[in-house]
Amino acid sequence: MLWHIRPLQCLARTRRSHRTYHRASPAHRAFQKPATFPVQRGETSLVLVDEARRFIQDCLLRMNVPTSKLRSISEFLVVADYRGNFGNGLNRLDGYLSDLQMGHARADAEPSVINETAATAHVDGNSALGVIVGDFCMDLAVEKAQKAGIGFVVAKNSHHFGMASWYAFRAAVRGYAGLVMSNAVPSMVSPDTQEASIGANCLAFCVKGEKSHFALDMAASVRDLGAIEWAWSTNEYIPHGWAADESGFSTCFPNLALRALRLFPAGGHKGFTLACIIDLLCGVLSDAQYSTQIPQNQSQPSNLGQVFVAINPELFLSNFRERLDDFCSRIKDSQAENDANPVQLPGENERAHMNYVEDLRALPYPNSLLAKYKLVADKLCVKPIDLAFDRCQSRKSF
Amino acid sequence: MLWHIRPLQCLARTRRSHRTYHRASPAHRAFQKPATFPVQRGETSLVLVDEARRFIQDCLLRMNVPTSKLRSISEFLVVADYRGNFGNGLNRLDGYLSDLQMGHARADAEPSVINETAATAHVDGNSALGVIVGDFCMDLAVEKAQKAGIGFVVAKNSHHFGMASWYAFRAAVRGYAGLVMSNAVPSMVSPDTQEASIGANCLAFCVKGEKSHFALDMAASVRDLGAIEWAWSTNEYIPHGWAADESGFSTCFPNLALRALRLFPAGGHKGFTLACIIDLLCGVLSDAQYSTQIPQNQSQPSNLGQVFVAINPELFLSNFRERLDDFCSRIKDSQAENDANPVQLPGENERAHMNYVEDLRALPYPNSLLAKYKLVADKLCVKPIDLAFDRCQSRKSF
Repeated sequence: MLWHIRPLQCLARTRRSHRTYHRASPAHRAFQKPATFPVQRGETSLVLVDEARRFIQDCLLRMNVPTSKLRSISEFLVVADYRGNFGNGLNRLDGYLSDLQMGHARADAEPSVINETAATAHVDGNSALGVIVGDFCMDLAVEKAQKAGIGFVVAKNSHHFGMASWYAFRAAVRGYAGLVMSNAVPSMVSPDTQEASIGANCLAFCVKGEKSHFALDMAASVRDLGAIEWAWSTNEYIPHGWAADESGFSTCFPNLALRALRLFPAGGHKGFTLACIIDLLCGVLSDAQYSTQIPQNQSQPSNLGQVFVAINPELFLSNFRERLDDFCSRIKDSQAENDANPVQLPGENERAHMNYVEDLRALPYPNSLLAKYKLVADKLCVKPIDLAFDRCQSRKSF
Repeated sequence: MLWHIRPLQCLARTRRSHRTYHRASPAHRAFQKPATFPVQRGETSLVLVDEARRFIQDCLLRMNVPTSKLRSISEFLVVADYRGNFGNGLNRLDGYLSDLQMGHARADAEPSVINETAATAHVDGNSALGVIVGDFCMDLAVEKAQKAGIGFVVAKNSHHFGMASWYAFRAAVRGYAGLVMSNAVPSMVSPDTQEASIGANCLAFCVKGEKSHFALDMAASVRDLGAIEWAWSTNEYIPHGWAADESGFSTCFPNLALRALRLFPAGGHKGFTLACIIDLLCGVLSDAQYSTQIPQNQSQPSNLGQVFVAINPELFLSNFRERLDDFCSRIKDSQAENDANPVQLPGENERAHMNYVEDLRALPYPNSLLAKYKLVADKLCVKPIDLAFDRCQSRKSF
């Protein structure tokens, strides 16, 4: 018996044009094929966390990723799903595998420092996977911030680095404020344009107090590409206002949105210019590709740029953590419009999802996604993902 | 004959409750009184730039501001009007005069460094006027960025610092990227709350290329308080979606918006959390006041916090300026939705307004604002603002 969690909407929709979607989306490429067996779309099955890790590591091993890197890459993808950021979790694995296979990301590459000062560093990612570059850069930023008060590291020749808050949190758990940005494939239109000239660039900021923490992870667009890809996987409509179709009108069909790659910026011009600032720092300053230089298809490596900042609050204030707690409580305590819907700080929704996963002791994945990875497993000759049955009964052994 | 420029809409509106507006707005305080003589609202008169400078300096002299500071303060206010940022120009003068009179800003104060590293500094503004603190901090940030690659300066005990791009541009003209942020009086609601728990905090980012420049100056709200105050001064409605009235509904009356102080964030939760990040760095980290600690009335000094960042692109890349030009042209060249309305980079609207002012050789101010400063002039015994007549005919002598 499969555990079907939270029945999802099964809505009538237009038939997906797989060819065009395949062309447009950077994350669903070589490994994505139409399912050839009946799939009950819109339903979800449980996968034990360890099983998800095992499958990811098996696939990466087939791509000759060194064993020393397997743990961090699989953890990074699983944690995204654990926090409810499904667009940047297991969903991304086939894109990474495809890029490794085509040589656009190098399994054995290590980032290197081009030049540095007491507070800054310019890093060449050498086409390593994004998480390898990101972990290296954030550790370097924290090291510099320890004495200089701030560490500012820019990376070029990097790869899609998934959930930005992964790196910002890496600084936060050591007592620093972490700020992370990345540019991305051009997929966002300005309120005055018809074509996408900038990516839905992301920004994450995390900092921890004594009792509370502030963990923001956002894209400059209303929603990021991963959320639309996830809606496509789970057979759900997207709300109007997220993205336009190829004629420029807002659409509620994720396949049309993914084909057109025209996301709407959050806050109109403000979201668009915020994305420009991120690209100026991540792409232009780092010597990576930027704006429309970044290829929308797989003809060449994406050569993304990223910025990692760590700030050492201890060098400014001794009681920063208490002040942060007070700040968070002031935001939390402001009178909600609806008492049933209290004010939430960034990171609280993710905490709620983590509790939900801990109760299940497993990660809920849509059957369509699992079917896709069945094909990937067949192709790579690895054991397919084993579904969790009635073993998931206690929270203790999670 | 007065020069009446661009007739403004004279719309029927509810009678302003001056008492409540006076209580709510931080910028219109002791010096603001209802005009006692007939004012033709909604019309605009010209004032020569030198005359605006002269008037500001005369008023500041009466508040015992040292002569060495007069030039920078008056220039800073006039340049805001010159760039079309009227909410932070002459419009702010009475607020500054009032704060100087009440001791909430100190005319003779100088900022001082509390502690510093190779790349950071913690500055005490000592309640000097915002522009004095801002200029000091940005110069310090640039000095640090020269060697360390980045300068990160946070200031406490600062004052309202007007147009944020003034400081960011100060870094940009020296070849650095300038990033400036400030917290503000709590005046913005989150999409879930009824009360304002955070300011419409501002962010400016400026950087210059060989041919182009990128000069963003924005608030985290849809529009800032200055824009609503300006609409009030010019007797215009504000569009729905800028701010709510006291019952929580969107209003088009600036007086109701200024009474309620509930601006809407740009992009919903995203604008709100961006304002939180700015307050965490500007207020919490700097030891200044933050969130609802900042008083909405004049009972105590506002003790604002600000962050000034300068980045030295030369330490990362030798061809940064060329790459910036290319980036700007990629954004500019993207296909506009309407050919008559080409894509504009941040700073281009301001450039157009500067051309407009240069053509006029004078600054256009609404008569209601000039009437207010007639009263200020009477109170301080300074010569009122002299209006420009048909002298303004040539662009040469501007």
